[in-house]
Amino acid sequence: MSGAQDERMALAVCRAGGIGSLPAGMLSLAETARQIRWMQAHTQAPFNVNFFCHSVTPPTAAEFDAWHQLLQKHLVRYGLDAADLPRHATRFPFSSEHLELLLQLRPPIVSFHYGLPQDDWLRALKQAGMTIWSSATTLAEARFLAAHGVDAVIAQGFEAGGHRGCFLDCEGLDLSSQLGLFALLPQVVDAVNVPVIAAGGIVDQRGIRAALALGAQAVQMGTVYLLCDESLLSEEKRKILENQEMHTQVSNLYSGRPARGVQTDLMRELGAMRAEVVAFPYASAAIHALQQAAAATGSTEFLVQWSGENRSACRRVSAETLTRALSACLRDTHTDSGCMA
Amino acid sequence: MSGAQDERMALAVCRAGGIGSLPAGMLSLAETARQIRWMQAHTQAPFNVNFFCHSVTPPTAAEFDAWHQLLQKHLVRYGLDAADLPRHATRFPFSSEHLELLLQLRPPIVSFHYGLPQDDWLRALKQAGMTIWSSATTLAEARFLAAHGVDAVIAQGFEAGGHRGCFLDCEGLDLSSQLGLFALLPQVVDAVNVPVIAAGGIVDQRGIRAALALGAQAVQMGTVYLLCDESLLSEEKRKILENQEMHTQVSNLYSGRPARGVQTDLMRELGAMRAEVVAFPYASAAIHALQQAAAATGSTEFLVQWSGENRSACRRVSAETLTRALSACLRDTHTDSGCMA
Repeated sequence: MSGAQDERMALAVCRAGGIGSLPAGMLSLAETARQIRWMQAHTQAPFNVNFFCHSVTPPTAAEFDAWHQLLQKHLVRYGLDAADLPRHATRFPFSSEHLELLLQLRPPIVSFHYGLPQDDWLRALKQAGMTIWSSATTLAEARFLAAHGVDAVIAQGFEAGGHRGCFLDCEGLDLSSQLGLFALLPQVVDAVNVPVIAAGGIVDQRGIRAALALGAQAVQMGTVYLLCDESLLSEEKRKILENQEMHTQVSNLYSGRPARGVQTDLMRELGAMRAEVVAFPYASAAIHALQQAAAATGSTEFLVQWSGENRSACRRVSAETLTRALSACLRDTHTDSGCMA
Repeated sequence: MSGAQDERMALAVCRAGGIGSLPAGMLSLAETARQIRWMQAHTQAPFNVNFFCHSVTPPTAAEFDAWHQLLQKHLVRYGLDAADLPRHATRFPFSSEHLELLLQLRPPIVSFHYGLPQDDWLRALKQAGMTIWSSATTLAEARFLAAHGVDAVIAQGFEAGGHRGCFLDCEGLDLSSQLGLFALLPQVVDAVNVPVIAAGGIVDQRGIRAALALGAQAVQMGTVYLLCDESLLSEEKRKILENQEMHTQVSNLYSGRPARGVQTDLMRELGAMRAEVVAFPYASAAIHALQQAAAATGSTEFLVQWSGENRSACRRVSAETLTRALSACLRDTHTDSGCMA
């Protein structure tokens, strides 16, 4: 939900009895600190701060050249010179500064995407009383996370929107290791001895009940919150989500890592997974430059909107109202499992 | 389940209170008639006969050449000449002869894969009292089937083993229209006003309960029956299924249409979806020739075993025992929904 929400949505979810999340992967250290402090000032309820754990290897000049060559037709069309394109990273991995900040502020739950930070950092977080979650897209990843001491595994089905959390099993362009939630969830539940949180394609009470039936202790929902009042998405991006005619696709074109979004012209033109794309997160800079050049002409070309496979339940309501409606099924069934956004 | 089971597995399922299926897509007319008559002689319970509804366009010589060229390295390795490779169809679409047979024998349920036969044939089957099912892999396909009068839609999630039933939305090599069951099932339930049968990744009671929670009236299970005593699979194929280290992948290499099976060396070498593969079902002939040449040297190379994404529950038990164990959860929850294999 990086870029799509901030502390206001997290608080709304907490107020309705869910566990709100602060996506911190695209935030500065200062902004991360501000959002955590704001949450702590406004609620006693548990909330979650999410970080990326990718390793950073800046692409070589030759790698940037191949990537920009793939976009050349569009660069020319918008009068952009590959030599002038920005080459900076747009997302920042969990660092010693993040660790220091967390040890100082101690938010209740810290979650990771793309694996886990180094063992001694993880131990320090746990010793300071923080609960640790991370995402698994395969059984091997779930076992890895459990062996490294996470308190809960998020089973991220292939239906899920945004970036695939894969960190062991999706090198290259082959996504075949990535299981649908019906296949992934019960196998992860059987494979690990910590609670499992289900993610991917869950948008309503039926989905929550189904995930619990498959053995989840809780569910994580993102897509269904994207049109909420508290969402940061622009009207253009909301319109993309509301067009139910387009299906979604997993693509590495927009960041360098596979992520599911509403299918775009660029995915159809180039193919959604391409070897020429530079490593995560360096691909984003060129795409952003194209988006801005297009926007200057009034076009929404090169915009991408992350989304799970089911966005039929997305509504323009408050996140608090939505969370209360979703979690009503849990009160009915007398379970103490939670809903999260 | 074509090639993996016959009337004995169907009867075992019926005896346990499920709806057994006869896959007829690879059977002669006479064998189809024999299996239906045998079922009618052995059970009063409802059972299902399944047919393929693909349109047949024999590939051109140039298309065969491109396909055989893709396999050339392996043809040379086994001393096979592309010019001598068989070019026959290995599966037969539903025909006027099938229609005549069904109107004479009247099995309780007739199901189709790859869409539906022409409207007047469908009407004739329905007027003769037969119940009609067909598979949908997208919302558009589900709406098409409901509009054409099916009595139930099978929602085939992307997790499912064997051939994708897609008939409207999966031309070319792009599989992105194909939804995971968590996303597909509730949307299909909302889109059609006939019962929905869930398929794909369901292997145990948890999966059955989850499918019912998402709105399914029944479930269709195939993979979990593949190791049953009544399965026709060779020991080599059973061993492929029992190796849990390999994940599955959807590939068009083995028949010309996308089908999910345990990942093979050929899928990894060539890529699982290739434009050079000739149209369904004509690709199978060359693959069979390679399989036979390999088998003559004691190798299982080029063998493929269809499987859904979750085969963790496959056991060497009788299909009757398995069906009773699976459906016990339905008796507990006082629902009249059925389990099918």
